[in-house]
Amino acid sequence: MFKKVLIANRGEIAVQIIRSLHEMNIKAVAVYSTADKDSMFVKLADEAICIGGPQPNESYLSMPAIIDAAILTKSDAIHPGYGFLSENAEFAELCEKCSIKFIGPSSKVIDLMGNKAHAKDAMKNSGVPTIPGSDGSIDTLDEALKLADEIGYPVMLKAAAGGGGKGIRECDDPEQLKEIFTTTKREAKISYNDDSLYMEKDLSNAKHIEMQVIADQFGNVVYFPERDCSLQREHQKIIEETPCMEVSQDQRDYLGSLVAKATKEIGYENTGTFEFLLDEKTNKFYFMEMNTRLQVEHTVTEEVSGVQLIKDQILVAAGEKLPFTQKDINVDSYAIECRINAEKPENGFMPSPGKLKRVNFPFGTKGVRIDSGVESGDTISPFYDSMIAKIIVHMPNKEEAVVKMRRVINEFSIDGVSTNRQFLNDLLLDKHFNDSDFNNLYIEKSFLKEWLKNVKK
Amino acid sequence: MFKKVLIANRGEIAVQIIRSLHEMNIKAVAVYSTADKDSMFVKLADEAICIGGPQPNESYLSMPAIIDAAILTKSDAIHPGYGFLSENAEFAELCEKCSIKFIGPSSKVIDLMGNKAHAKDAMKNSGVPTIPGSDGSIDTLDEALKLADEIGYPVMLKAAAGGGGKGIRECDDPEQLKEIFTTTKREAKISYNDDSLYMEKDLSNAKHIEMQVIADQFGNVVYFPERDCSLQREHQKIIEETPCMEVSQDQRDYLGSLVAKATKEIGYENTGTFEFLLDEKTNKFYFMEMNTRLQVEHTVTEEVSGVQLIKDQILVAAGEKLPFTQKDINVDSYAIECRINAEKPENGFMPSPGKLKRVNFPFGTKGVRIDSGVESGDTISPFYDSMIAKIIVHMPNKEEAVVKMRRVINEFSIDGVSTNRQFLNDLLLDKHFNDSDFNNLYIEKSFLKEWLKNVKK
Repeated sequence: MFKKVLIANRGEIAVQIIRSLHEMNIKAVAVYSTADKDSMFVKLADEAICIGGPQPNESYLSMPAIIDAAILTKSDAIHPGYGFLSENAEFAELCEKCSIKFIGPSSKVIDLMGNKAHAKDAMKNSGVPTIPGSDGSIDTLDEALKLADEIGYPVMLKAAAGGGGKGIRECDDPEQLKEIFTTTKREAKISYNDDSLYMEKDLSNAKHIEMQVIADQFGNVVYFPERDCSLQREHQKIIEETPCMEVSQDQRDYLGSLVAKATKEIGYENTGTFEFLLDEKTNKFYFMEMNTRLQVEHTVTEEVSGVQLIKDQILVAAGEKLPFTQKDINVDSYAIECRINAEKPENGFMPSPGKLKRVNFPFGTKGVRIDSGVESGDTISPFYDSMIAKIIVHMPNKEEAVVKMRRVINEFSIDGVSTNRQFLNDLLLDKHFNDSDFNNLYIEKSFLKEWLKNVKK
Repeated sequence: MFKKVLIANRGEIAVQIIRSLHEMNIKAVAVYSTADKDSMFVKLADEAICIGGPQPNESYLSMPAIIDAAILTKSDAIHPGYGFLSENAEFAELCEKCSIKFIGPSSKVIDLMGNKAHAKDAMKNSGVPTIPGSDGSIDTLDEALKLADEIGYPVMLKAAAGGGGKGIRECDDPEQLKEIFTTTKREAKISYNDDSLYMEKDLSNAKHIEMQVIADQFGNVVYFPERDCSLQREHQKIIEETPCMEVSQDQRDYLGSLVAKATKEIGYENTGTFEFLLDEKTNKFYFMEMNTRLQVEHTVTEEVSGVQLIKDQILVAAGEKLPFTQKDINVDSYAIECRINAEKPENGFMPSPGKLKRVNFPFGTKGVRIDSGVESGDTISPFYDSMIAKIIVHMPNKEEAVVKMRRVINEFSIDGVSTNRQFLNDLLLDKHFNDSDFNNLYIEKSFLKEWLKNVKK
């Protein structure tokens, strides 16, 4: 087992990694920017090294500074946490070259899954369904009609040379496709001097469902119950839950066996998450991308499965066997996570950095877990994300969990910055949320508009 | 369901009761002494009434003041917490007379179980084994030898007129009994002018095992896995765990069915705990007493069973059915509680009251629960018990739980008062503790002596 591990991260996740290391009797080395010198994770670590200025590229993204710190402190391994360098194949490769174990998959696999086209191909080869569409351009209306029929309406017709959301047309049925095909082709020619079109299934009204896996070097792979992370805004997850109320045990088993097979076939080690779109009309899953790292919302999976993912990441990175098998993972309870951010939802979710004059979290009572990296007197820095804490509630079912989450959300007290408390509270009260009747677009297209109307009254 | 409940208690337990009430959409009324005016539970309540001075008999033990507050605030019920008036039959009766629901068993049952002799008789009648001994005085050596043979050695020969630990002789075998019988009788005559002797099984080397039950008014009773509370000092529990490593599933089922039957037969409603001595030699249980209230250590039971006991207390007090059955209660994990006290173990566990200049609890990560009623700036008052927090760790097994508990115990920071951190840490490291090789006397007769030698070096 490792004797000393360096954490190439900050804040909440650095704190949780240090705690796991301490429980495993491993020394923890923190690296920090000048902005973080008084942070909880710096105090908690056994050694701490300042690696640069507050801008991420001066410190938490500075590969040479971090590698130097690891060598200097004789660290055996680096845990990258989430964000920053956690999905950077070059950094993983640099660790490999320096004989420092990168706690994550190999640089090769990070590279493979980091390229969307390659990742899609790899998944196709493993039999994982990907978003259907044309492999290249479509030249005739007949071709278009045939393919649309195959992949199912609605479809999106896209100008191959377009980008940034431009040159895209939605078609709900063959009539519409017939109407717009020639026009879209002509427009593409005019706009981009290239009339090639391609087609993709329109999955904008879908649920974001993801499935976490963990694998050791002996070919053991375990998957965990799916998480529903559809409640997002500008691709930022707001509330995550597991399991998804709309996924049956059969679907779970099906998706699980698919991702477990793919994990093995791409030679994946450590933990990672397969993200899918669940088409609400057909109830089918389509692979979006893979996150080759720990995620913020791994907490809800820990609660429901009983597993401690950071510890298991370290175990398998050190070459040990997974200490559990698929049979040990059951779905007989429910967990939810809300992220408390220093921000102003009523003002476009503008960050609200500042000094936390006083923070009191209502930790305590059965089923409540609050993962945070700050205490009274600390600062939410404008240089980094504005998360103050993750509140996780684990209960036998969603109804009980949501009641408890609302109590906790309403009980915490934070002086010095604005928070998204009210927004979360109102979302937790929302009928669509409670009925699990929402998809990826629900917050932006529906809930937020209504909420802003009421909040501004 | 109740609309408003008054909490006749303070500190940590008042906070947890208020939280449960809030999750049940019930208003919470706090009553407080002048010493507690700035306490967390006062701030958290929906209404708060000062009921008197800092001495318990001026406030938390003042029945008229509390009943007045309940009437004034139109509270439907009173939750007594633990300690103070929670086992006071007169107070429960007063509530009954004022048509305020006392959240606990009826005054009659509190009265019955509060009298040790009556409680023992009631248990005997229900077939629960009680500490065996003579029903009255023993006049001859032959009688003594016969009874000792029946109840098993070691036995204690006690002067009926003795008391305070005096006039007691231990006998390990018939030879010893023969030797001392006449002498003990003569000494009793000389000391108390009364030579009556009685005999009881010597259970000083036993484990303190207790079993919690909950019952509704429809005759449904559920028992929970036993707790081992043997780690005590002067009858103050220090560490509690569930389940007890030394109790088999067969023993658990046996004890459970006994207490469930007794609970029904004495007409017990709400939650309560049967305390037993487990004789290490014979592996037999003997009833000691019943606590007719919630206990400090109910938390470990909540963790392992998944049940929320305060909520269920309120449910059944309001006349609802228990929301679970015996089949829902499994023992497939382990939980432990350590009480963090403001005290000096190296100095006879002298209380160390004072202002908590800064308190930071390492809440967060899977399996950690910290129930507390204080925050930075609060005071541990010399008028009340010196508990700062209960740290509860819930893990698949004892080994993992103890590792995590040690990390948490070593991570918290409390400035302003002394704590029992070091004592707890060293106890958690102790081989006897980890091997579950300890009984009621282990702390006082063995561990503490060694510990004091080392700590004073």
